[in-house]
Amino acid sequence: MQKLNVALFGLGTVGSGVYHIFTQKSKLLAERSGTCVQLVKVLDRSPQKKGKPRVPKRMLAKSPKEILNDRNIQCVIELIGGTTQARQLVKQALNAGKDVITANKALLAEHGEELFRIAKQHGRHIFFEASVAGGVPIIKNVSESLIANRIDTVYGILNGTSNYILSKMSRQGMSFRAALKLAQEKGYAENDPTLDIDGTDAAHKLAILASLVYGKQVPFKNLVYSGINHVSESDIAFADLLGYRIKLLAVAKKVGSSVEARVEPTLLPKDHILASVNGAFNAVYLRGDEIGDMLFYGRGAGSKPTASAVISDVVDWGKCYSGQRSWLPMPSSQKIKVSPISAHQARFYLRFNVTDKPGVLSKIAGVFGKYNVSISDLTQRERQSAPVPLIFLTHHVNETSVLKAVDQISRFKVVRGKPQILRLEE
Amino acid sequence: MQKLNVALFGLGTVGSGVYHIFTQKSKLLAERSGTCVQLVKVLDRSPQKKGKPRVPKRMLAKSPKEILNDRNIQCVIELIGGTTQARQLVKQALNAGKDVITANKALLAEHGEELFRIAKQHGRHIFFEASVAGGVPIIKNVSESLIANRIDTVYGILNGTSNYILSKMSRQGMSFRAALKLAQEKGYAENDPTLDIDGTDAAHKLAILASLVYGKQVPFKNLVYSGINHVSESDIAFADLLGYRIKLLAVAKKVGSSVEARVEPTLLPKDHILASVNGAFNAVYLRGDEIGDMLFYGRGAGSKPTASAVISDVVDWGKCYSGQRSWLPMPSSQKIKVSPISAHQARFYLRFNVTDKPGVLSKIAGVFGKYNVSISDLTQRERQSAPVPLIFLTHHVNETSVLKAVDQISRFKVVRGKPQILRLEE
Repeated sequence: MQKLNVALFGLGTVGSGVYHIFTQKSKLLAERSGTCVQLVKVLDRSPQKKGKPRVPKRMLAKSPKEILNDRNIQCVIELIGGTTQARQLVKQALNAGKDVITANKALLAEHGEELFRIAKQHGRHIFFEASVAGGVPIIKNVSESLIANRIDTVYGILNGTSNYILSKMSRQGMSFRAALKLAQEKGYAENDPTLDIDGTDAAHKLAILASLVYGKQVPFKNLVYSGINHVSESDIAFADLLGYRIKLLAVAKKVGSSVEARVEPTLLPKDHILASVNGAFNAVYLRGDEIGDMLFYGRGAGSKPTASAVISDVVDWGKCYSGQRSWLPMPSSQKIKVSPISAHQARFYLRFNVTDKPGVLSKIAGVFGKYNVSISDLTQRERQSAPVPLIFLTHHVNETSVLKAVDQISRFKVVRGKPQILRLEE
Repeated sequence: MQKLNVALFGLGTVGSGVYHIFTQKSKLLAERSGTCVQLVKVLDRSPQKKGKPRVPKRMLAKSPKEILNDRNIQCVIELIGGTTQARQLVKQALNAGKDVITANKALLAEHGEELFRIAKQHGRHIFFEASVAGGVPIIKNVSESLIANRIDTVYGILNGTSNYILSKMSRQGMSFRAALKLAQEKGYAENDPTLDIDGTDAAHKLAILASLVYGKQVPFKNLVYSGINHVSESDIAFADLLGYRIKLLAVAKKVGSSVEARVEPTLLPKDHILASVNGAFNAVYLRGDEIGDMLFYGRGAGSKPTASAVISDVVDWGKCYSGQRSWLPMPSSQKIKVSPISAHQARFYLRFNVTDKPGVLSKIAGVFGKYNVSISDLTQRERQSAPVPLIFLTHHVNETSVLKAVDQISRFKVVRGKPQILRLEE
């Protein structure tokens, strides 16, 4: 059996998991795959740090160059994260004629075009199973198992931190703040949780996934996204009352020759299977013209689950490199049009906190009428303290009209604070 | 691009779907896969029958021999179902040096050992993605994407007909009879639904899936299985009251060096994601040592979804045959020990219909005590008409003890009808 050599950049959470699988399962992997891929070098800023695996001295590289210049290493695994040093490293590796395996969604979403171009120039390849939904093998399923399908719609719960917080708020009535604190204590959220909470991380993953599904680039910079920080406990309670759960949902839909793509907190009917995805789990729901509706569900982060996806890439890379498999085509560099938000027809959940009810309702209704925003449900619950929340669910309506109507209503004196606008999917 | 030729046996539901994909998407498939597999011959008993695709005359074979003797055909797709003619055909095809793609779970579960042996003798291969969970690509995921994992536990909802019926009973309060009738009207159940309803079909699929997961044969004949025909509306209602849903669950668990494997109606907590698998859908839930918990969900039957899985096999076969992929190893012929039912520790739902309550409860409790069957929940609801159902949930207890206790209790004069015993999973 031909022996292939890879090097690992980064011994953080995922890197440690990858290192452990290499040390504990190399025999099993060789038996199962018929290839022998060895981890020969590891580079990490602080490999002696407590909790990191004990890497034998001979395997520890002292500099990136030691790996990049080593002609016996055919592939590097980039698990350092971020977009500055990682981008540099991946470029250098490709330029040095090495293939790359990465779990770095920010890097691929923001610089994928450049990196795939460089890879093509050198006839090299980038593997990225672990970059979307962690351990869930969605990249390979879309590329191979669903090959007979044209996929038109993708729904994803792609950020475990946000989903953990929303689940705690929904199931245990926690506040956003308390749930975030718990997520940090449990290791589901970073000290600085911004990229998770504000929707950026999920949008990175959606850009990668949608580009693969539609066979053309869905540029990250064209995505509309927002996070869960503006979802209140009362929104979650009202959604529950109306038969819905709020999830940070990544959505991509093919509409004609363009794509509608966004990430935002969204109401889903309780009996939809995505509404049952709780805690730090991820899920991808998609619709193919042959297969119909499908769901993939699993751990979207964490050391071992993400390492499981990285290792499946290592094995596939080894098969490709040794001629036991043909390389998959690299993503197309063509771009697909992402349709403007105003083109969307959708259903919405609207909350206004108002002080003086009787007169207000007819005024608000009048504005909705003026903008052709048709209402399907109206809920008002007496509260001990003013202001009183007024909740509207709309029928399918034009998004621009809703925004205009809400803007006008928000200027009424009796409306307190910022109105809430959330999308509703069925 | 090398052109490869396949033939199709059977233009039934799935065969028609496969035929349509070949006629409508051959260009797309060639572009995506880099292989060109053509459908050149079709054999069907009554190709002129209404509703079947119109196959050009030159493609219609008049006899199996016309296909089996054609040296330009490298692979046959067997979609006639059953285990008599299909077995013969597959053996003949393998003996003639052709590879085989099949969706036939009964054939593989009951005669797989023989067929894989013949395939090995001739250096040929059998592809069977569509045999388990229809369109859900579980075979490929277990073999490839989850390669870094040792999987210890598999839960499956593998029979769409049963799941449709149980969902209708649970969500709409239908009787078994009414739900079955509706399933037949909708085309989810055959005129003779025996194999679906009595658990045989799900057990066939479990035997195939468990064999793959554990890398050794889990023989179908060693599986314990039962169906949903003895699940009553009141069981579903009581389960609901206690926080559970009843599903026809296929379970395989590695316990030491042996496997516990069975199919039976089982109580699942409502907030488990498998409890949200409704209608004719299938799902496979599994636990790997790296990936943790994962779920694959999709349509387990039907023309297009199953054809989607068959076509993914066609593409993979084409890649293997043309040297763009190495063949996956054939299943091991070694057998794994399936542990006897008496070795199982589990929780149980028990229902007794009794006429005379006061004295009875202490008598029943006495029997449970004698057999060390520890009870966690007891529910009794007043009914207008006798007998009154008494529901017990047990803690984890020995299965043999439960069976003995129930047997003794069932002999009490006040106990009417057959007691119900269902397993509970958490």
